[in-house]
Amino acid sequence: MERAKVRLYVDHALGEGQTVPLARDQAHYLFGVMRMGVGDAVALFNGRAGEWRAEVVEAGKRAGTLECVGQSAPQMDPPDLWLAFAPIKKARTDFIVEKATEMGARRILPVQTDFTNSERVRIDRLQAHCVEAAEQCGGTFVPEVAEPVKLGTLLSGWPEGRQLMFCDEALAGGPAALPTRSDAPWAILIGPEGGFSEAERARLRGMDQAHPVALGPRVLRADTAAVAALTLWQDRLGDWS
Amino acid sequence: MERAKVRLYVDHALGEGQTVPLARDQAHYLFGVMRMGVGDAVALFNGRAGEWRAEVVEAGKRAGTLECVGQSAPQMDPPDLWLAFAPIKKARTDFIVEKATEMGARRILPVQTDFTNSERVRIDRLQAHCVEAAEQCGGTFVPEVAEPVKLGTLLSGWPEGRQLMFCDEALAGGPAALPTRSDAPWAILIGPEGGFSEAERARLRGMDQAHPVALGPRVLRADTAAVAALTLWQDRLGDWS
Repeated sequence: MERAKVRLYVDHALGEGQTVPLARDQAHYLFGVMRMGVGDAVALFNGRAGEWRAEVVEAGKRAGTLECVGQSAPQMDPPDLWLAFAPIKKARTDFIVEKATEMGARRILPVQTDFTNSERVRIDRLQAHCVEAAEQCGGTFVPEVAEPVKLGTLLSGWPEGRQLMFCDEALAGGPAALPTRSDAPWAILIGPEGGFSEAERARLRGMDQAHPVALGPRVLRADTAAVAALTLWQDRLGDWS
Repeated sequence: MERAKVRLYVDHALGEGQTVPLARDQAHYLFGVMRMGVGDAVALFNGRAGEWRAEVVEAGKRAGTLECVGQSAPQMDPPDLWLAFAPIKKARTDFIVEKATEMGARRILPVQTDFTNSERVRIDRLQAHCVEAAEQCGGTFVPEVAEPVKLGTLLSGWPEGRQLMFCDEALAGGPAALPTRSDAPWAILIGPEGGFSEAERARLRGMDQAHPVALGPRVLRADTAAVAALTLWQDRLGDWS
């Protein structure tokens, strides 16, 4: 059976024989841009039910319908890992969100720190980037992008059992103090380009759940640090081993 | 002593009392854009002599002169690690080069594989990206970007002692088979978006120096794979521990 050339995220139930109506932009993409027609195969996922092979049963300019034929991959959820980061310039924030999806984070939290140049963050745009990244990387899960929150507020309501790997450029050259096993839920916190403030650093270090981690001897940009931290975590504690 | 707000790479000798003429674009940046003047401090590095604190002694619109006052950081070379990758879309190739500099690669090699959409690669532009990344990340070393080469040619002349970590999306979900110690020089090879061809894969697997490595269960884009592979290598074999 030929592999579907297009993967689409749909916010719709999927299952044997299930028909799925297409949104206007999806119909335009499949039939206008990709020149697909009735009978062509598309891979669908909804973030909950794995990947399904579907076929086009109706194709119009502004609408269309697919029908699920069979499941082509099981649902695969990433480990219970959050990525919290201070938004930076637009392109680099987009990049962090894309990479967090590929690398397998479950939830993405934009946080405002003392030294964040508080860029306006459009959650709907970031969420759309997650969907696109999941479509591209073959994933069946789409992380949720949370509403932006102040770091202090986030830490005040921090869930008791959730461990926190915080990456601070002030630690450059120090050891990566991550445990090698943990069944707890986790979060990664990436500092802003200007680093954490002293008050933030003191507060983080005072938390029982906090694990300060150095990312090598060179200072990394926030977007590089996000991918590097996700790699270390997945390699030691996540689903890479 | 106040920390210099600007770091500049210069292709010039650095040392106590050494004067350094500025190129036209550097003079424009310092005096036009950053509004600096005589007596202001600049951090200089040339990729060989560490970082030097310098002061502006002449400031003009199109030229200027700095004088080295004292060394502010020792030279720090990254481990003997090459990053070879198949160039992809422009923005993502730029990104890989930037990240390789931050993450500490010594040499960057664009390679053409069987499935590379052979994008034209402008070495001078990529080299300029390395310089900019080194200026930003506080590094004192600038990796060299090599002329593009076919993968087959590269492998035919492969240095006998250099180990090769090759990252192949076909391995997704498998183990990361990296040794935990090695004094040898290394290279990382990132496959193109379409993966390696069967012939390439067979050839790589037949090399004594080759270590196939999986980067988790999700398919990563080439730029993500580059940062993830550099992280794994630096963490296990490089200067992160």
